[in-house]
Parts: sequence; C-alpha cells; structure tokens
Amino acid sequence: MSKYVYTFGAGKAEGKADMKNLLGGKGANLAEMANLNIPVPAGFTITTEVCTSYYENNETYPDGLSAEVDRAMAFVEQTMGSKFGDSENPLLVSVRSGARVSMPGMMDTVLNLGLNDVTVQGLIKQTDNPRFGYDCYRRFVQMYGDVVLGLKPESDDDIDPFEELLEKKKEARGVQYDMDLSADDLKELVAEFKAAILEKTGKQFPEDPMEQLWGAISAVFGSWNNDRAITYRKLNGFPDHWGTAVNVVAMVYGNMGEDSATGVGFTRDPATGEKHLYGEFLVNAQGEDVVAGTRTPLPFEKLQELMPETYDELKEIAERLERHYRDMQDFEFTIQKGKLWMLQTRVGKRTGFAALKIAVDMVEEGLIESNEALMRIDPNMLNQLLRPIFDIEEKQNVINNGGLLAKGLNAGPGAASGKIVFNAQDAVKLAEAGEPSILVRIETSPEDIKGMHASEGILTARGGMTSHAALVGRQMGKVCVVGCESLEIDYRKREMRAGDKVLKEGDWVSIDGTTGEVLEGHVTTKPSEVLQVLLDKTLKPDDSETFHTYAKVMEWADNVRKLRVRTNADQPDQAANAIAFGAEGIGLCRTEHMFFEGSRIDAVREMILSDDVEGRKAALAKLLPMQREDFIGIFKEMAGKPVTVRTLDPPLHEFLPHTDAEIRDLAEKMNISVDKLNARIESLHELNPMLGHRGCRLGIMYPEITEMQSRAILEAACAVKKEGIDVLPEIMIPLVGNVNELKSQEDVVRKVAEAVFEEQGVKVAYLVGTMIEIPRAAITADKIAEVAEFFSFGTNDLTQTTLGISRDDAGKFLPYYVEAEIIDSDPFESIDQEGVGELMRWGVEKGRTTKPDLKIGICGEHGGEPRSVKFCHGLGMDYVSCSPFRVPIARLAAAQAVLEEK
Amino acid sequence: MSKYVYTFGAGKAEGKADMKNLLGGKGANLAEMANLNIPVPAGFTITTEVCTSYYENNETYPDGLSAEVDRAMAFVEQTMGSKFGDSENPLLVSVRSGARVSMPGMMDTVLNLGLNDVTVQGLIKQTDNPRFGYDCYRRFVQMYGDVVLGLKPESDDDIDPFEELLEKKKEARGVQYDMDLSADDLKELVAEFKAAILEKTGKQFPEDPMEQLWGAISAVFGSWNNDRAITYRKLNGFPDHWGTAVNVVAMVYGNMGEDSATGVGFTRDPATGEKHLYGEFLVNAQGEDVVAGTRTPLPFEKLQELMPETYDELKEIAERLERHYRDMQDFEFTIQKGKLWMLQTRVGKRTGFAALKIAVDMVEEGLIESNEALMRIDPNMLNQLLRPIFDIEEKQNVINNGGLLAKGLNAGPGAASGKIVFNAQDAVKLAEAGEPSILVRIETSPEDIKGMHASEGILTARGGMTSHAALVGRQMGKVCVVGCESLEIDYRKREMRAGDKVLKEGDWVSIDGTTGEVLEGHVTTKPSEVLQVLLDKTLKPDDSETFHTYAKVMEWADNVRKLRVRTNADQPDQAANAIAFGAEGIGLCRTEHMFFEGSRIDAVREMILSDDVEGRKAALAKLLPMQREDFIGIFKEMAGKPVTVRTLDPPLHEFLPHTDAEIRDLAEKMNISVDKLNARIESLHELNPMLGHRGCRLGIMYPEITEMQSRAILEAACAVKKEGIDVLPEIMIPLVGNVNELKSQEDVVRKVAEAVFEEQGVKVAYLVGTMIEIPRAAITADKIAEVAEFFSFGTNDLTQTTLGISRDDAGKFLPYYVEAEIIDSDPFESIDQEGVGELMRWGVEKGRTTKPDLKIGICGEHGGEPRSVKFCHGLGMDYVSCSPFRVPIARLAAAQAVLEEK
Repeated sequence: MSKYVYTFGAGKAEGKADMKNLLGGKGANLAEMANLNIPVPAGFTITTEVCTSYYENNETYPDGLSAEVDRAMAFVEQTMGSKFGDSENPLLVSVRSGARVSMPGMMDTVLNLGLNDVTVQGLIKQTDNPRFGYDCYRRFVQMYGDVVLGLKPESDDDIDPFEELLEKKKEARGVQYDMDLSADDLKELVAEFKAAILEKTGKQFPEDPMEQLWGAISAVFGSWNNDRAITYRKLNGFPDHWGTAVNVVAMVYGNMGEDSATGVGFTRDPATGEKHLYGEFLVNAQGEDVVAGTRTPLPFEKLQELMPETYDELKEIAERLERHYRDMQDFEFTIQKGKLWMLQTRVGKRTGFAALKIAVDMVEEGLIESNEALMRIDPNMLNQLLRPIFDIEEKQNVINNGGLLAKGLNAGPGAASGKIVFNAQDAVKLAEAGEPSILVRIETSPEDIKGMHASEGILTARGGMTSHAALVGRQMGKVCVVGCESLEIDYRKREMRAGDKVLKEGDWVSIDGTTGEVLEGHVTTKPSEVLQVLLDKTLKPDDSETFHTYAKVMEWADNVRKLRVRTNADQPDQAANAIAFGAEGIGLCRTEHMFFEGSRIDAVREMILSDDVEGRKAALAKLLPMQREDFIGIFKEMAGKPVTVRTLDPPLHEFLPHTDAEIRDLAEKMNISVDKLNARIESLHELNPMLGHRGCRLGIMYPEITEMQSRAILEAACAVKKEGIDVLPEIMIPLVGNVNELKSQEDVVRKVAEAVFEEQGVKVAYLVGTMIEIPRAAITADKIAEVAEFFSFGTNDLTQTTLGISRDDAGKFLPYYVEAEIIDSDPFESIDQEGVGELMRWGVEKGRTTKPDLKIGICGEHGGEPRSVKFCHGLGMDYVSCSPFRVPIARLAAAQAVLEEK
Repeated sequence: MSKYVYTFGAGKAEGKADMKNLLGGKGANLAEMANLNIPVPAGFTITTEVCTSYYENNETYPDGLSAEVDRAMAFVEQTMGSKFGDSENPLLVSVRSGARVSMPGMMDTVLNLGLNDVTVQGLIKQTDNPRFGYDCYRRFVQMYGDVVLGLKPESDDDIDPFEELLEKKKEARGVQYDMDLSADDLKELVAEFKAAILEKTGKQFPEDPMEQLWGAISAVFGSWNNDRAITYRKLNGFPDHWGTAVNVVAMVYGNMGEDSATGVGFTRDPATGEKHLYGEFLVNAQGEDVVAGTRTPLPFEKLQELMPETYDELKEIAERLERHYRDMQDFEFTIQKGKLWMLQTRVGKRTGFAALKIAVDMVEEGLIESNEALMRIDPNMLNQLLRPIFDIEEKQNVINNGGLLAKGLNAGPGAASGKIVFNAQDAVKLAEAGEPSILVRIETSPEDIKGMHASEGILTARGGMTSHAALVGRQMGKVCVVGCESLEIDYRKREMRAGDKVLKEGDWVSIDGTTGEVLEGHVTTKPSEVLQVLLDKTLKPDDSETFHTYAKVMEWADNVRKLRVRTNADQPDQAANAIAFGAEGIGLCRTEHMFFEGSRIDAVREMILSDDVEGRKAALAKLLPMQREDFIGIFKEMAGKPVTVRTLDPPLHEFLPHTDAEIRDLAEKMNISVDKLNARIESLHELNPMLGHRGCRLGIMYPEITEMQSRAILEAACAVKKEGIDVLPEIMIPLVGNVNELKSQEDVVRKVAEAVFEEQGVKVAYLVGTMIEIPRAAITADKIAEVAEFFSFGTNDLTQTTLGISRDDAGKFLPYYVEAEIIDSDPFESIDQEGVGELMRWGVEKGRTTKPDLKIGICGEHGGEPRSVKFCHGLGMDYVSCSPFRVPIARLAAAQAVLEEK
C-alpha cells in the first residue's frame, strides 16, 4: 500500500526536496527545511497521487487515507503543543494546494481552519485578544463559505455575500476600514455569515473541525479542475494527470502584535543580482496584507533595526537555504510573538541582469560549476543586457497615469522615445535636425529602410515577429514594437489613435521593445553598459561589472559549444557590431538591401526597365563598382572570417515605385512614358510573389545579374587579398529547388571567377553553395550536394512553403492557432521541429550522404532563437547565423545544447 | 574483335530487326526485310559502335573497318551484278545515317555515289539515257559538294553555289524548270560544279569512288554532332553516346521512265485505322520528289490500275510485313523498270482514332493480345475520340491562306468556332440568341464561369495547363486554348490583335484545343461519335464503330487495372457525364464553385461582410437549402458511389467584387457604405493568397461555415437514403498541415452528424478525411492518419508548395526551365516524381504505418495525366480522380501501369 501522507516539523520530515512530483513544490520544500532543522510550522502533505486517485475513483479517497490524516494530525498536535478542536489551546491549520510547479492563484486555500464557537475562545485565551480571535474566526467562516461551500461569486461583477454583510456592518457602525470594527462587531458578523450560509446552501456551517478539514481538502483537490487551473495547465503544457498535493500546516500569526510580522525575501537582489538579503515585511500583519498592497511594506534594513536578533536568524537561514539549494531563493516567513517561522522557499525568479550576475558570482564563490551556471541563464535574457532601458520609475508613473497606449509584439528589445513620424522621409529630416523620432507605420517595406535607420525606434500596427519591420529592426539593433493591432494609424490625417486617445505627428511617444509596451509622451532612456563597452567604446571593460559578467558567461559558452555562430549582416558597420558580439563570420549578406541606397536604386530600376540584355548589362555596369565597394568594406571588416553572400533574391517588382507620384518621377528620370512604366510594373505584378519570379529564377533568366554580382564579390576579394588581408567569400544561390538550377548559376560564377582571377593576377579561395529554403531542395539534397559546397537552411521561406503559410498574411489565423493550441508556438519564431525540422533532418542527412563533410548552417531568423539553435546543434550543423544582436544568445544556446546532451 | 559491318540483300542478311541499337532503325529493318526475302537493294550497315569509337578516338576509324567495308562492297557488287567504279555497269550507292530512333532530317545523306566521268558513261549505257545519266551525275556532284565538302551555306539567307550556277544556266538557256535543261547543259553544269569546288575548297572533286565513299561515311558520322542533331537529341532526351549507323545501299531509280515509280505507304489508314493498303506514289520520279511536293502524288488505287502486278506484289509484301512486325507499318518503295524494291519499313505513326481501331482490329484478327493492344495506345490519344473536330480540309485551307493567328496551349481538346466575345455576359447573351461564341479573355476567374459555360470555347492570353480557364474548361469539357501569349487582347477597344491582324468583337474565330491553334474565321466542326453515344445519346452504341472500339479498349483496361478512377465534379450534370465515361465515384466535389451560382453569391457575400458570428450564421442559413439541393442532385446521380466533398477552400476575397461599379452595387444591395465595403475588401487582401487564409484555416476561424456545409451534405445524404438510394459521402477537409487542424474540423463534422441523424431519424455511413496538399501534411502523415479516414493528395497545391512555385506566376520562367532542360516537364502537368513524388511516397507510407488500410487517392489535375496515374499506381494508391473527360485516359493509364509492372 502507498503512503498517502507525509509529515514535517521539529527538525524532521518524512519527505524531502527531490520529492516534488509526489509532494508538490511547497510540500517538498517544507519537508526539506524541516530536515535542515529550519523552523517551519509542523504540518503534513497529502500526496498528488491521492489527487489522481480522487479523480480516477469518482471523487472518492483511497482506503486508509483517513487513518493517515489522523496520525499526521496527532503528530502536528504533539509538535506544536496544541490540540485540534481544543477549547483551551486549539491547533489551527491552513489548507493549501501545492502542485509540482507553481500555479500562482489558480487553486484554493483555506486559512484559520479549526475555529468554531468553542475553539475561538481558546484562541482568545492564548492571545489575550478577543478582537484578534473574532477577526480570525470571521475570516475563516468567510473563506470557508466562499471556497469550500462555493458561495464565491463566479463573476467579478457579482457581490460576495460576506463582503456585502461586512460593508453593511461598517456602514452601520459608521466606520471606513475593517480594522475599525470591534470584537463584538466581528462576533456579530460571524453569526450573520453563518446565517447567510444556511440561507444560501440550506446547510449549517460545520462546527466540527475534522469535518471542516475534510471539506477543505476536497475543495483544494476540486480546485485542480476548476476552469482557471485547466486553462493555465493548457497554456503551459502541464498534463492533467500531475495532480496537486494538499498541505495542511499549523497556523502561525504575524498579526499578534508589534512583536509579530510577516514578509517575503530573496537571498540576492532579483533585479540586479547583488549579493545581499533583499526583501520586505509588515509588522503586525498577515501574509495577505503584504500581497494586497493596502499597506506599504518596509525594507529589510528596517527589520534589522526593529528585531535585530530575528533578522540575524533570518539572514543565517537564508544563507543556509541558498547554500543548500545552490541557487538564489525566494522565501516567505512569519514572526509570531518574536519567533521566526519559515513558510516557504523556492528558486527565485530574476531579471536577465540578475540571472547573469548570480550565475557568475556563484561560480566565483565556488557554489556551482560554470556549466551549471550556463544552464541557469535563459539565453533570451541576454537581450536585456544589450538594450537601452527606460528609467523604471518614470515608466511606471506614465503607466499609473493611464499612459499605456497599447501593447504589441516585442520585436526589437530596448527602449526608445521620440517624436511620432509617419513616413521614412520625415524620420530622416528629424534626424538631420538632431531630433529623435519614432517611425510609426502600418507596416514597413524596403523603401522605409533609411527612415528606420534614422529613427530611434519603429512601431507598426501590423506584422509578426518576422515581419519586415521586426527583421530589419533586430538586424539594425533598433527598438521595435510590431503588430500593435489596436492602434489605428491614419496616414492622411497624420495621426494615430489608441482607444479614445489621438496622437498627432510630432507628439512624443515611447516604446519598450522588451515588453511591447507603447507609452504616451517622453520617457527617459539609459544605454546598456554592455553596449557602451562593446560598440560605443565609451566604457572600458574593467569599468563595468555587467560587462564582466557578460564576458564571463560568453567565455564559458564559447568553451563548451560546438556550433559556430555567424551573423546576418549587409553592411560593414553591421559586420563590425556582429564581430563585437562574437560573430565568427557572416552567414547571410543580402545583396538586395544594398540596392536601395542612394543613387543605386536608379541603376537597379534602369536594369529592370531595360528591354534587352544589353540595356540590363549597361545598368548593371553602373552597380558593379558600388557593390564591389560594399564587399571590400565587409571583407576588410571580417578579415578572413567566412562571408556568405547571397545573390539577388527578391522579385524585381519590389524595386519599383508604387505611388502615382513616384511613378511619374521615375518615368521622367528614365525618359519613358508613364504608360510604359505602368505597363512594365503591371507585367511584373505577381499573385503570389513569395512563390514567384525570385531567387535563382532571376539569375537563370538574367544571368547578367549573377555575373555582375559574382564579379563584384570576387573583384572585392582580390582587392582585399592584395592588401594582405585574408578573405573567404562564399557565394550562395537562393531558392534552389533542383540541382540543375544551382548548376546553371554555379557555371556563371565559376566562369566569372576564372576571368576575374586572370584579370587581377591573383586567386582567391571561394565556395559556391545554396540556400535550402524550399521543400524540394531538402527532399533532393543528395542531388544538390553533388554541386553545392555548402548548404544554408533558409528557415523563413522553408517554413512558409512547408506549412503553406505566408507569414505576411498569417495574422488572421496564426495567433489564434497558438492560442487554441492547434500549434505549439509561432513557427516563424521557433522552428516547427515536427514538420520543417523533419525536412531539415532529411536535408542534412541526404546532403552528407553525398558529401560527408558538407558545411551546413542556417541563416533564417530562427538562427538566433534558443530552441531552434539547440535543434540545429542536434542535427549536426556546423553553424547558425543570426542578426548581430542575437549572436550572444546563439552562443549561449549553442553551449546549452552541448550540456543538455550530457 | 567486334564486327563493324553487316551486309544484307538477296534474301539474307547478317543483321536483324532486334539489332536496332547496333544497326540503327533503318539498317535493322533493311536486314530484317532481306531475311524475309523481301526485295531490298543490297547494301551494308556500318554499326553505331563505329560512330562512338570514331568520336572517342579523335575522329579515326578502328583497324579492320576498311577491310570489312571492302568485303561488304564486294558482296553488294556480287548481289546487284554490277561493279563499283565500273565503266560498263557501275554500282552506285546511297550513303545514309540511321540512328536507333528516327531523327528526321537532322543528319546527312549522299545519293548516286560512285559516279565520275568514267562511270557516268556506264550509267548512260545501262539506261540508254544520257540526260538521266548527267542528271544523276549533276545531282551527285552538287550533293557531295554541299554535304561532304561543306559548301552548303550555313544560313538559309546565303545562296548555295551550285544552285547559283544552275539558275545561271537556266537563264542562259531561257528555260524555267530543271527538267527543261538538256543532257549537254547538265554535262556542262557538272564541269562548272567541279570548277566551283576547286575554287572554293582548293581541292579537286574526288573521281575515285572509294575516296567518295569514305568521304561520305565520314560526313554522315560527322553529322551526328552537327548543331541541329545535338539540339534534337537534347530536346528528346537521347544520349550522345548512342551514335548513328551508316547505311550504304545500292541505288535503285524510280525515275527511269514510265515503268518506274517511287512511293510511300501504310499497311492501314493512319488517320482512320481502316484496314486497307494506303499510300501514294509518283511515276518516273525520285523519293525526294514525293517529299518536295512539287508534283502531286497519286493514290494507290492508281498504282493498281497502272502496274497491277507490281501493286499485287507490294500489297502482299505489306501484308507480310504487318503480320511479321505485328503492327501497322509505314514503308518506302521504288519501282525501277517494273521491278519493286523496298527501301524502308517501320512502325507507322497514327492518329488517336487509328491507334484505337488498329489495336482493337488486330486483337480481333488474332494478331496481338488485348494486353499488347492496351500498351500500344497513348492514353492521351483517347482525347481525340471525345472531342469535336474540325473538318480537316477546311482547316488546312484556312492555314494555307494565312489564317493561323496564333498557337497556345491545347488545354481543352476539341474544335470550336464562334463569334468573339470579350466578357462572360456577352457569351451568355449570344447563347440566348442561339449564336455560338468564343470567350476571349486575358485570363478567366470564377466570375466568368457562366460565360465559359455559355460559350463554344475559351481562349486566353495567359495561364498554363492548370490555369483557371484550363481547369474549368477541361472539367466542363469545353474546347480551350490558353496561354496564347502572342495575342494582344484589348478589353476597352473590344479587339484582339495577332501580329498585324485585328479581330473585333463579333468576328468569327476558330480554336483547335487539340493542337492549340487559333484560326481566323469560321471552320466547320464535327461532333465525336463517342460523345454522341455516351452523352448526347443521339447515336446508339451499335451504330458507331468508333464507339465499339472505344468500349472494347475500356473493357480490356477495366479488366486489368487495379486503381479505381473517380472524377472531379461539382454539379449533377458533370457527375452524369463522368459516370458515362466510367467514373466510379467523385474524388473531388468543390463546394465553392456552387457558391457563384445565381443569388447564392449574395448570401456568400453577406456572410463575408458580417461583423459577427450571428450575422454569418444568418447568411449561411440562406445557403444551406441551396447546398443541400446540390448534394441531393449529386448523390442521386452517383447512387451509392463514393462522393468526396471538400469543405470551403478559397480565400474569402475571391468572392468579393473587384470593379468600382460592382462594389457600388454590392454596397447598395448590402445596405452598407462603399467605404466600409472597401475597407473590408482591403482587410481581406493578401500578399500571397495561395499561402493565406484559406482551406481549413477558414473553417477553424469560422466553424459555422463547416457546420453549414456538413449539415447540407448530411441532410442531403439522409434525404437520398430515405428515397431508397444508396449514398456514401466522404467529407474532406482541405489544406491541413497539422493533425490538430483536422481534429478541430472533424469535431465540428461529427457533432453536426449526430444532430442531423437524430433530427432525421436515419443514419448514414460517412467518412471524414483530408487533403494532403502541403508538405507538412505529407511529412506528418502518420499523425494525420490517426484522425483521417482517407487521404486525397491535392497535387496542384502540393506542387506549388513543394517547389515554391506559384503556378499563376510561373509563366515568366517555367517555360524556359522546360526548354533549357532545367526540369524534365511542367510539374503542373505531370507529377514531379523526384520532389513532389517523394513527399507523396512518404505520405502514403507514413499514413499506412498508422492505418494499414487507409484509403488513399489523388484529386489534383495530375489524376488524369498518364505518367502521373502510373506513378500513383506505383505508390499503391486506391484511386485517382480527374476531370470527367479524362476518366477514360486514367482508366487506360491505370491498366498500362499494371502491365508495365510485369
């Protein structure tokens, strides 16, 4: 027969910390503290197995449970020196849920259980405080009525019958607060509460403490299957069969006078990670008072002042807990008449800053190994170290004053304040005038790039985490909030509406790209120290402890990881940033982004509008020197690190203007008729441009484009090599689905290479490879590997095609899919491992069947997302490539991937 | 040592018919005829291995070849009783290429070889005809100069030096035709030709017959690698290493007077298949005269009249050849001074009609087995039996008079003439007035359906074989020519331009959907007999021999095939047609096509424009009775055969109007503002609708649509069952990529089914399954099969997503891809077996891992394409489904798939 009940108290316990699955988190840790001889009120835990059995057996308890509860209760009585139901010195208990993971506020709790008309007199005798006694009694009856007897209203709009009586009583007494009611008032309320229970349920309030106890136990088990708890489990992926434990613990009181108190604490500062006891408390108060926020709690310094001995004891216990658990602890305690009782301990939540600092400090303190430290840091938290941040108090003030306009997706972490502009040109103008702007667009397009660069931050009403705005924003390191669907943006009126608020062009707005919040007005920002060291060089490494922490973690990660980490960068400055963040190469240099700069777009458009190959070649000849200069800049910056350059990818219509005015201008510039230009634009129009004439399909129809681009790359490589700088270009052909496509483009590249090396009198090692970004490429990877010298998985497009989902159009259903759990997570954020991932596995395996040492990487946005990075490691890839600001995240995730294998 | 040379003649040969790879088609068949004791001029074949060796060894011949040629030449001399280079009775030979497959006109030929100033006298003596002798000599020198000595101009624009001299001579003599030149004139020309050769090449014309022979052999081997031949091989996928053989054959002459003739024949009529000797000939002429078309050849009846004995001999030989080869033969012959010589025989090309008739007749004659007959019919040829056809002579007249306007893709076989209309309404109007129309559109959309139905045929300037026009056209059985890129269609001017011709609305135009030709004016059409029997019932089966043939082939096919054949049909009349064609069920009933009829589109639009679920439900309630009636009609027609109904698939914006006028009308009808309507249209706009909010993604966001459709299907099924008619609905959920999507929709269907069966008091067996049309569905088919009761591969969309190609936008590169052999064939016509096919294989295997007897079919357009049908058979599918007119094709292809396995 199983054991159903585990007792703890007085320096010993039947359970321990690693029995969380059986005892729940709270119960296991209470037992562990008891074993450590830390003062916890005695109590017992009814196991999660009882919960499971309860539901499997039509809500009945297993034989023998009752006897075990009786035995445990006797142990608690003996330990606490009081007696359940006693009229002189009654034992009172709390009955709480406790699942293996914390489900805050989801399930039910009953406090002060054991009180009735007889025992309340014992409580009064023990405390010599009738008001305290009746207040406890009043609270208990109310809570029992609400929770166990089901009188709590289902909707927040309905009124709790007990609250109603309480309000009436205060009104009758002409007082404002509960605390102004007298012992007699409270005694009257107890009677009125009981009458209400009889009226509403047709049953008497149970005076028998054991009946009370079983009622509360059933209520807690029952709350495992209330709607909130079910929803919470669904959202978090916790299975129903886990069940909850029930903890029955002797009550202790922090509200027994000025020598009593209650509080919460952390063994280190959860915001900064500083190593000092951190917490807050209230004198003469109960735990719920701290949470409720009706009284402002005091910092621990004050506790040291008021109760120096107890403080010392608490400090010693906290240190002991941290050493024992080898991690920062979040604990609850109560001081009853000068005696300290610990009520809970668990691993404390922390910010990214704190997570890093604590991990590094604990290694330096010898508490944990560096590998364990690495596993404790959520890679995404590194973002927080790299982004400017809002002054936290100022931001809270804005929110408190109703200045939170909207919440979108946190696409580009950091904080930015600026004047609202609705188009790219205005952002450039303001930047020239030295004024910060926030570029507000319904969505952005490549034409907005200058404006995105010029602005402090980008805010869009549409688009997901991989929309154009989000992608470019992250790559630029811009603060970016996208997909703020509730914002109405009116370009014509040059205003943006959020609910009934209207913000005009030029008004200040602030966006928090770490949280997705959009705030009215200006909020002061601070730059991140790590950025000051790495990029601005305004701070020396030694002057920043944050940087020290960051650098330490990166060092450990680099020692462990096997995946190389590259970056997606199109410009020398981006490349420089990425190197500062530890990039070991460029995994994706998109040549088309270069096409939009300055006068280049004119040459690009001239090329597109040419009627024949000669015209296209003439236009391309103008682009050649500019592209060559770009590559020289990048190659010099990368100094021998591999640089993967992708040939032209987007459909040509993306380079043509859209508005009538722009079309008129261009026609004039190109000296052709507006009609002809419109006809050309019309002829390039596509129903599904994502699946249209793009990628290598351009280079195959217009080999002169690939010729020019290969020439620019290889001439640049020769020039850099001649300067004595190492260079390693990798030319990547996009959107290949058939090896013949790659072969056709490879031929072009190889011919150009021969010619260039001959002309330049120097040879440069280079590779020709391909993106694997449509399913057919993965399926036929064995054939493609016959030609390709490397593969780079383009998981953005591969996700779109494998799932048949246009990420630009998915807004109408994909968020619902995630919400309704049709899919686990947004496949454009984290690789869909079951679908897309399976194709990737085939691609890697088939590719390596043909070429066992084929170099394989990923350059989709997923390359900087920790789960995806780990998946890529598992596939045996050589590298991941991501936007510069995600490089540290990828480095850490890659290290964790290795450690998780062990 | 290999044998290089194979002789034939005088009733024996060293080779035979099955040595085609070594001797080429011509050489093998000449040998075979010799073995059959059929009179062929003696000769010999130099093998294809010599050709390969020639190219592998720097254009030199293997040792021993020369001796073998000498030996063979001696055999020819002996057999023919003449001598190579003899002044009295010289042997003259032809030297011709002969690859294992026919490559008509690609390689070189030299005739009359062996003539020189000495032997020409022998020829004159033998024929007693100096003019004949010098004419042969003149022709030989010219041909030798052109072919062997390379004087033939490369471009058609340049003038052949010999032709120039010939023209001069005729001018000098004041005559118009070659035949008016005298023996002396020709003799002079021979001298002038030789002088020209000396002048242009610096070398004397070789008088030595053996030197002539080796020159000609090298020229023929050399022509294997001329540009034309290389291109031809590339286009047809013939490998370079096959090589050509060289045939050296004694010359015989059909131009030695009125007792000589030359001709070509077929053992049966190649157009109709009738069993009678069919052919044409010219008296006193050479083979090239028949081909050149300068004289009109005479039918064989005339030969029987003029040379009854020779005709009888020819007839006997033809019958022998056919019996021997067990297939219809296409042969060439020459009669020299009353003696019949057979020059070539091979399997004859034939029309679809003839192919069927010959195959069936030969089975009935006991010549072949029915299985062999099935293998001899190209399934696509069945189309010809089902389509109306143009009067062949009238059409040829139009073409001869320059009336061929353009050539597009032959999307819907058959012939149609009508007045040009440029929009659907006009087609309807003309139909109401009893006038035939051809609907000419740049491309068609679902709104054009009524007009497509009303017109005789459909002609579009854009779109491929699976464009909307082609798809609907085939399904309706309409004559349809699509993708006529050279046509300029101007809706505003209501005219269509083809080159410099302008056709206005109302002008007559004729389109041949079997060939893709577009013809000016009216051309008379004839309906197909098979259609008259099967559909019109205007002809009884016994009255049509064509139908007898068709029915026989279908019967044989049905006895052999394992795949079931279903049809894609949305309306009862289509279903009826399909059953007539042998469909065993409906594999795809698209409910959205029903949405466009009459007042339905209003309710559909009302549903789309509703702001909430109540509004949508109200609109759907209006559609319910209409959809139910549709299904009742279809279920009755199918009478227990399975009917797969797909729930709503296209994105909702497809149902909304596009033009300002239509939008105004709709706004008024719906009683909403134009602005609001425009806003809704804008909000539904998608960048990539193919990958957008469609398929089950609609039913998941708007379950009320699936509810209504399931209810319509199941209420209809109950109603039909109550009438005592069997019914088997299969409800198919489109665009599933994740089993949870299917589960979500299955839940809706099952709930509706329970409710309907309860309401109706009757239960109907039904299945719920899914399309496999995006890669993720195939990849996770094992999981999807946990819910799905059947799979139907939607290979149109699966091809689009697997290849990342939008078929609507592929026109800019896909035709080039096929032309440049980057891909084998248009993947939207025939399944891309390496890519899409591999995914299908996984899908089938994984699906059957979960459910070993999972019913699996295909309902993409590929289901009626023979190669794809065979591929589906190979995958172990249960059925294919295709448009009604393709059902017979699929039945035959399915039978061939079984036979090919053996």
